Amino acid sequence: MSKRQAARRKKLIREVRKSDGDAMLVSNESNVTWLTGFSGDSSWLLIGPDIELMLSDTRYTTQIKDECPGLDMSIRDAKQTLTDFAGKALKKARIGKVDFEAASMTVADFNKLDEAIDAELLPTSGVVENARMLKDADEIAEIRKAIWIAERGFACLKADLSLDQTELQVAHNLEHSMRRFGAERAGFHPIVAVGPNAALPHAQPGTRLVGDAGHLLVDWGAETSSNYRSDITRVLVTGKNPKKFETIYNVVLQANLRAIDAIKPGANCKDIDAIARDYIAKAGYAKYFGHGLGHGIGIDIHEQPRFSPLSDQVLEPGMVITVEPGIYLPGQLGVRIEDDVLVTKHGFEVLTTLPKSFDDAIVGRLAG
Amino acid sequence: MSKRQAARRKKLIREVRKSDGDAMLVSNESNVTWLTGFSGDSSWLLIGPDIELMLSDTRYTTQIKDECPGLDMSIRDAKQTLTDFAGKALKKARIGKVDFEAASMTVADFNKLDEAIDAELLPTSGVVENARMLKDADEIAEIRKAIWIAERGFACLKADLSLDQTELQVAHNLEHSMRRFGAERAGFHPIVAVGPNAALPHAQPGTRLVGDAGHLLVDWGAETSSNYRSDITRVLVTGKNPKKFETIYNVVLQANLRAIDAIKPGANCKDIDAIARDYIAKAGYAKYFGHGLGHGIGIDIHEQPRFSPLSDQVLEPGMVITVEPGIYLPGQLGVRIEDDVLVTKHGFEVLTTLPKSFDDAIVGRLAG
Repeated sequence: MSKRQAARRKKLIREVRKSDGDAMLVSNESNVTWLTGFSGDSSWLLIGPDIELMLSDTRYTTQIKDECPGLDMSIRDAKQTLTDFAGKALKKARIGKVDFEAASMTVADFNKLDEAIDAELLPTSGVVENARMLKDADEIAEIRKAIWIAERGFACLKADLSLDQTELQVAHNLEHSMRRFGAERAGFHPIVAVGPNAALPHAQPGTRLVGDAGHLLVDWGAETSSNYRSDITRVLVTGKNPKKFETIYNVVLQANLRAIDAIKPGANCKDIDAIARDYIAKAGYAKYFGHGLGHGIGIDIHEQPRFSPLSDQVLEPGMVITVEPGIYLPGQLGVRIEDDVLVTKHGFEVLTTLPKSFDDAIVGRLAG
Repeated sequence: MSKRQAARRKKLIREVRKSDGDAMLVSNESNVTWLTGFSGDSSWLLIGPDIELMLSDTRYTTQIKDECPGLDMSIRDAKQTLTDFAGKALKKARIGKVDFEAASMTVADFNKLDEAIDAELLPTSGVVENARMLKDADEIAEIRKAIWIAERGFACLKADLSLDQTELQVAHNLEHSMRRFGAERAGFHPIVAVGPNAALPHAQPGTRLVGDAGHLLVDWGAETSSNYRSDITRVLVTGKNPKKFETIYNVVLQANLRAIDAIKPGANCKDIDAIARDYIAKAGYAKYFGHGLGHGIGIDIHEQPRFSPLSDQVLEPGMVITVEPGIYLPGQLGVRIEDDVLVTKHGFEVLTTLPKSFDDAIVGRLAG
């Protein structure tokens, strides 16, 4: 992938030229990965028209040589901090003004850096993140692979499900299955939530049994060896549920389908969010859907853009975003249906392929 | 654990009273967990003599009620950002000066918060982290549990090892074993590195086979359901190695033993680091040991204090720290031996129990 990363850096350098800075200090770990192919951490990239320099430490010398052939690097030992080291590199390169990533630099690091150098530090916002929103063909292929692995893992989960498994066992087996299908690891800690636990949008799997209620919610994804991720949610109906359960399921499903249907280049993210949010509100569940409708996926599990009432981002071809409306009745039940959607030239493609009607959610008789 | 967390908050409030701030905004996720028992993310704690308020969002309403009984909370919906929301809470509480965690607040969030409020924002450094260094009896018991799980997992790894397994398979099976012994998950992504890969202190497990070289390095740990972690490294000798391999192994082992032996209350962290570093240097391998000697463990896999040439921290009873010297010859081999050590009233206790002599590292004939 080194040609691809070199092209990304070239594009970023054009952005730096347009800015007030002489160079940019990239401190966000995923941005460094996307720009260089380096998969480690604790490393910053100094990049501009006259410099491309990875600032790292002795743990990563060989790895950077392997993963980023041809990229200059400067390696510190245990006797220097990263901020002091970056300060020295800036001085040595005689950089007078340097752009930095304000959302990926702590106040403490900023203050240390600011003390160490005479250069002016200019805050920037989302420069690399905005470039990362538009996935190229290889990135989309990787996300498809992450989805394929996740869906194969889910098929195993369904096939193996029994009433006496705990949420934690289901989650662990799911992760293990995904690894057998080639995942580097789970894309994030899987959520497996039975009955009332499903009403917690970020439930932690625990000792509750599959048979303790009539449904469970599974929110999971895979991470490929190139570090791209998928993110899917499905609900499985395993027994008896409150009368309104099917109604709520279908409200969520309609919200999911209608929002997806409106996805196309030029659409505004907050309008897509509103389609699902308004539909749920009209059905009488406004206060039971509190989170945003979706988020970009890629190297990070949560990337730009966001389907949120707060986002004015306009959709463009190549963006890959989740659509995940939900309704959560505390202490009773939770339903969320989540797909990964690619914005295409003329509309959208749903990359996830698992069926999602209420009938599809019903699993047959379970052992245990 | 809610009484314990209340006591921790009470102690922190005493620190806040001594500071210039009227209250403190805790934004570090692990600090919030330690102070409240809340295991989710994206939530800040506003705490002072007149206020204890969790700032979170609708995903976590029920979870906070469950995990933090009695703690006041303020819940935002998708239409407000956390910084705007925190600004409003500060205004409402009429707080004029607020301490914040400079190492856990981004420049972007700081700027947004600073714009939103009239209150003065006062940077603090390591207030909660310093308190977290001293583990209480329950925390030490949790770390012991995390070590027990990790060591049971390693026994399975050794029993199951064969020459045709890939690094990734070994890593995945290890994580799965630890979960069967009760781990919530691995304490971090396990490192399984065969031969030359072991020379990368942060190697990612890949497709290299166990049989591709004469040794492999395993650096792993477990995370308990209460989110405490262990961190261990052992090398396994599976076949033929360069002549100097045993010599290097024993240099690392001596560095590990001598550093541990010097651990006691009152000792300085950089002196402990120097014992191992100087020993390795005298043996002629100075430039092949670049990282720090160790780090605290607990809720985070890397906590304070650090065994590092840069740390002036003095050891106190209750600290739990790794001791992990290593020698890495690029392209050839790597040896690291890591134990978890508790500082006791009069000295130290090595919490890890796996043997570590060169003879112990030799595994019998392997299939595959």
